[in-house]
Amino acid sequence: MDFNAVYHRANDNFCYPLDKERLIINIKTGYDVKYVNIVQGDPFKEGILGGGETWTGEILNIPFKKRLKNQIWWTTTLEPQFKRLKYYFELQTEDELWYYFEDGFVSQRQLNMEGRSRQCFVFPWMNPSDIPVVPQWVNDTVWYQIFPDRFYNADASINPSYVLPWRNKGKVSNEEFYGGDLQGIKEKLNYLQELGISGIYLTPINESPSSHKYDTTDYFKIDSHFGSEETFQSLVQEAHQRNIKVMLDGVFNHCGSKFEPWLDVVEKGPDSEYWEWFLIEEWPFDFSKGAARNKQYYSFAFCDQMPKLNTNNPKVRDYFIQVCETWIKKYDVDGIRLDVANELSHTFCKELRKELKKIKPDVYILGEIWHDAMPWLRGDEFDGVMNYPLAESIKDFWIDKSLSKEDFEFMINRCYTGYMQQTNDVLFNLLDSHDTKRLRSEVHSIDEFYQQLATLFIMPGSPCIFYGTEIAMEGGHDPDCRRCMPWEEIEQGIYDESIEILKQLICLRQQEPLLKSRNFHFPNFYENPRVIEISKLGWIDNAVDIIMNCSEEEISIEEEGEILFHRHFSEGILGKNGILIRKDIR
Amino acid sequence: MDFNAVYHRANDNFCYPLDKERLIINIKTGYDVKYVNIVQGDPFKEGILGGGETWTGEILNIPFKKRLKNQIWWTTTLEPQFKRLKYYFELQTEDELWYYFEDGFVSQRQLNMEGRSRQCFVFPWMNPSDIPVVPQWVNDTVWYQIFPDRFYNADASINPSYVLPWRNKGKVSNEEFYGGDLQGIKEKLNYLQELGISGIYLTPINESPSSHKYDTTDYFKIDSHFGSEETFQSLVQEAHQRNIKVMLDGVFNHCGSKFEPWLDVVEKGPDSEYWEWFLIEEWPFDFSKGAARNKQYYSFAFCDQMPKLNTNNPKVRDYFIQVCETWIKKYDVDGIRLDVANELSHTFCKELRKELKKIKPDVYILGEIWHDAMPWLRGDEFDGVMNYPLAESIKDFWIDKSLSKEDFEFMINRCYTGYMQQTNDVLFNLLDSHDTKRLRSEVHSIDEFYQQLATLFIMPGSPCIFYGTEIAMEGGHDPDCRRCMPWEEIEQGIYDESIEILKQLICLRQQEPLLKSRNFHFPNFYENPRVIEISKLGWIDNAVDIIMNCSEEEISIEEEGEILFHRHFSEGILGKNGILIRKDIR
Repeated sequence: MDFNAVYHRANDNFCYPLDKERLIINIKTGYDVKYVNIVQGDPFKEGILGGGETWTGEILNIPFKKRLKNQIWWTTTLEPQFKRLKYYFELQTEDELWYYFEDGFVSQRQLNMEGRSRQCFVFPWMNPSDIPVVPQWVNDTVWYQIFPDRFYNADASINPSYVLPWRNKGKVSNEEFYGGDLQGIKEKLNYLQELGISGIYLTPINESPSSHKYDTTDYFKIDSHFGSEETFQSLVQEAHQRNIKVMLDGVFNHCGSKFEPWLDVVEKGPDSEYWEWFLIEEWPFDFSKGAARNKQYYSFAFCDQMPKLNTNNPKVRDYFIQVCETWIKKYDVDGIRLDVANELSHTFCKELRKELKKIKPDVYILGEIWHDAMPWLRGDEFDGVMNYPLAESIKDFWIDKSLSKEDFEFMINRCYTGYMQQTNDVLFNLLDSHDTKRLRSEVHSIDEFYQQLATLFIMPGSPCIFYGTEIAMEGGHDPDCRRCMPWEEIEQGIYDESIEILKQLICLRQQEPLLKSRNFHFPNFYENPRVIEISKLGWIDNAVDIIMNCSEEEISIEEEGEILFHRHFSEGILGKNGILIRKDIR
Repeated sequence: MDFNAVYHRANDNFCYPLDKERLIINIKTGYDVKYVNIVQGDPFKEGILGGGETWTGEILNIPFKKRLKNQIWWTTTLEPQFKRLKYYFELQTEDELWYYFEDGFVSQRQLNMEGRSRQCFVFPWMNPSDIPVVPQWVNDTVWYQIFPDRFYNADASINPSYVLPWRNKGKVSNEEFYGGDLQGIKEKLNYLQELGISGIYLTPINESPSSHKYDTTDYFKIDSHFGSEETFQSLVQEAHQRNIKVMLDGVFNHCGSKFEPWLDVVEKGPDSEYWEWFLIEEWPFDFSKGAARNKQYYSFAFCDQMPKLNTNNPKVRDYFIQVCETWIKKYDVDGIRLDVANELSHTFCKELRKELKKIKPDVYILGEIWHDAMPWLRGDEFDGVMNYPLAESIKDFWIDKSLSKEDFEFMINRCYTGYMQQTNDVLFNLLDSHDTKRLRSEVHSIDEFYQQLATLFIMPGSPCIFYGTEIAMEGGHDPDCRRCMPWEEIEQGIYDESIEILKQLICLRQQEPLLKSRNFHFPNFYENPRVIEISKLGWIDNAVDIIMNCSEEEISIEEEGEILFHRHFSEGILGKNGILIRKDIR
């Protein structure tokens, strides 16, 4: 047996309660393993251990599998009657049988040896307060990310003095201000509603000197160039009337250089009452040479203008918890996205969750984490994270033409076996953002653009498009991805066709429950290695099939079904770069 | 390459801060991998990501290895200048080079492909408040576990009416009471001090109807048959005067059937204000048929007399935090061992730690967990756990004679690669307890008994012997492992020889810092597959070598060294079942 391929640990994504009744158990093995049984039962079925009792479990087959690159991911759901479970595994290859315990592999002979230990796996108790619970509405939401300065300038009276005329085309820089504002977003709510959007995520709106506002001056004040408290309140109200949720961006890893506590520290040094709010090594600061690079203090990404806040300090934690509480209570926001969430202390993230969920139990706490985020997703910190690993895996398939449909399957399965199922439902799926190149500028063609978007909308999680995606807006790396929305052209109907495509995809996502579902498999019916096939499965014998032709050849499609969406498909032929989404009629 | 053998995840025991400066990184590979490099650096060295910058890391070799059953455990310590690290690995076999990222293996060609993602591992920030810190004194402590009713009856005036005469020999049952008390322990402190003990762990002493007292009636009251508050206070004081720490047993997973809140629930049902303190499915209870087995309420191990406390309920949490606070403040105890700790809610464990460490920062919080306890050992719950997996692995080697010295190496390495290094220092190492057969009744001979004890005293962690181990006390499964200490015989000198052996081992542990050290390797110098060799390594070129002959043959020992402890060793020959501990002179 390929011993090294076998992995299980009775925690994290390998063993966890899905809810109060169900316990999910996953185990990885090599492809040589033909079937896996779990020998399981209540730890105390035979009495208190340590005594002379011998524990015996009940054998159950583990029926479900996903294929990973070199391993099989076996999964089952149990309902332990008394909330606790003790177990080990039986692994059967073509010609070998091994028992897998916490301390490794045991032969039949060793299993029966008098006195030998049996170091079973244990999930000791499904305590309700430890079970990760996510807000139910998030999986039903299609998000639209807005960078306010570039979205719509509706109120010229609050323009900054240095505002530039709105530009429908061409590159933009960080130093430019276009006067987009909250009133502008409010006036476009109908537009967003028609598009099918049910959540908007705003990059920061608090007072700050920059156009991106990730360098906050005052966390309790809305930037006057964006609007007033009243405008934001009514924006949220009107969004809610349209069943659109609103998420704010919380930048608590660092502040801007005009944040008052920081100014106090710059001036007074160790005498400042805010000295411990930051992480300072040396004072006074010499900004002429790069104070952060010279380790005078810690900052975000060596930006002197973004000194790092010390979220290990209880005072800082209390302050930002209060900031969030205010946002929820005063504005009734539905979600908070935490910027640079991976650098915040876990201590802070845990306290923050506890306090916010008290006020609004279904508030969505989203962390900006680009890498494996398991430590933040154990149920006591964030609900979800920005799913950049999924984005990168999807994009890699279209960039690296040597990857086959099986590689695609392995990559997607990897992304959806790394966390708990309930977390998968509320991962914030995206293909681009204010921090990346725009998708349209990353792909080779508009066809690939829509293939990747179609993938986004059929995946478990909560999909988000960046403003302008509906018009296939171009844009290079930050800051060029933050161009102005060309409203004049949109109103002229120039983008009607692309908007219509997005509407169809969004509408499909909203109306077809299977697209949101966690359950999918890869039929691998077609031989062509660059034809992606995904089947989203329902509980009854229903399914939605997605077929995308990423090869250089046309594909002749078998069988019939109700077509829900298609590109480059006619008369049973799926053309190059084509997409076909259809309801299985079985 | 054996892809399946490779495992790393940027958290838990694979990547964690040892302290504010040092980050430990571990990776498992197959034996086919000849060297491992880490390509690492600050994530923002080249600027903010998402822009056009390309991150490049610095290549460092990972020098240290441990051997596991089928894998190599590679380990290194880095000191990230700015507290954050981004990295991937280079794995070199005889003829292959692969790059290992979070999403898998990447070839040279793919690594350099334009636009392809690099899903690096990231440890985003070494936040001080998240770094697991353990009490420093624990690694220096040799524990002695006392089951008070059976240790020494010094105060006959508080004997229960149903007390039995002290019995120096023979089986005991749970229903018998022998009148051992706190005054008895106090009077034996000199004895313990002479033995070399520096910590005593008492099984529960709060009011309870049983001899074991794991079914508490009143958590705020010391059982009157054990003594008064004053007696316990002076016991702790006198222990502290002898540099002996004291640890109490906290039974918060369940209470006894005479606990007042439970009596109230039994009487009033859902009208009781304590209804939510327990986990009840049906009321009134029918005790005639086994109320717990019939799922009328949850209990410990189906014992009707031990109803399970609901540590998901904030009121219950607050109550038991207050209990612990009282123990620390009133009696100045140094440690609390949590009974059935794995069934407590994590929510409770986290709050408990936070509050107790405020009062006494170096209090030792020890969980009774018999299996992999990683989820409780992330720095925000327990300091250590009872190291039953180590005990079981050690015992298995002597039970299963087909296991070789390499298997022993693999088992020990497994036990010490599962948690963080700082946790390893304070694991509560034991070979038996009130919950198991006594070691003497488990082994084939007194020689094996001492070989296993020698192993206990050279391992990283905090060793504990069960009372009576110094006289090689026998005893079967619970409750027979809880026999009376035969003080008369001890005073007659009958056990002088065995006490002397334990004194030597304890004294060696206390005086030779290398025995406590985390650093050890397995020289595998002797060919005999049943000769265990362990080298404990110092920072300078010093070492303590332990050689144990578990084979049927005599072994001729090479070289010289200062002998620290030996059995069955003379004139260069280590006999069957012999032990040799010596200081390397290099």
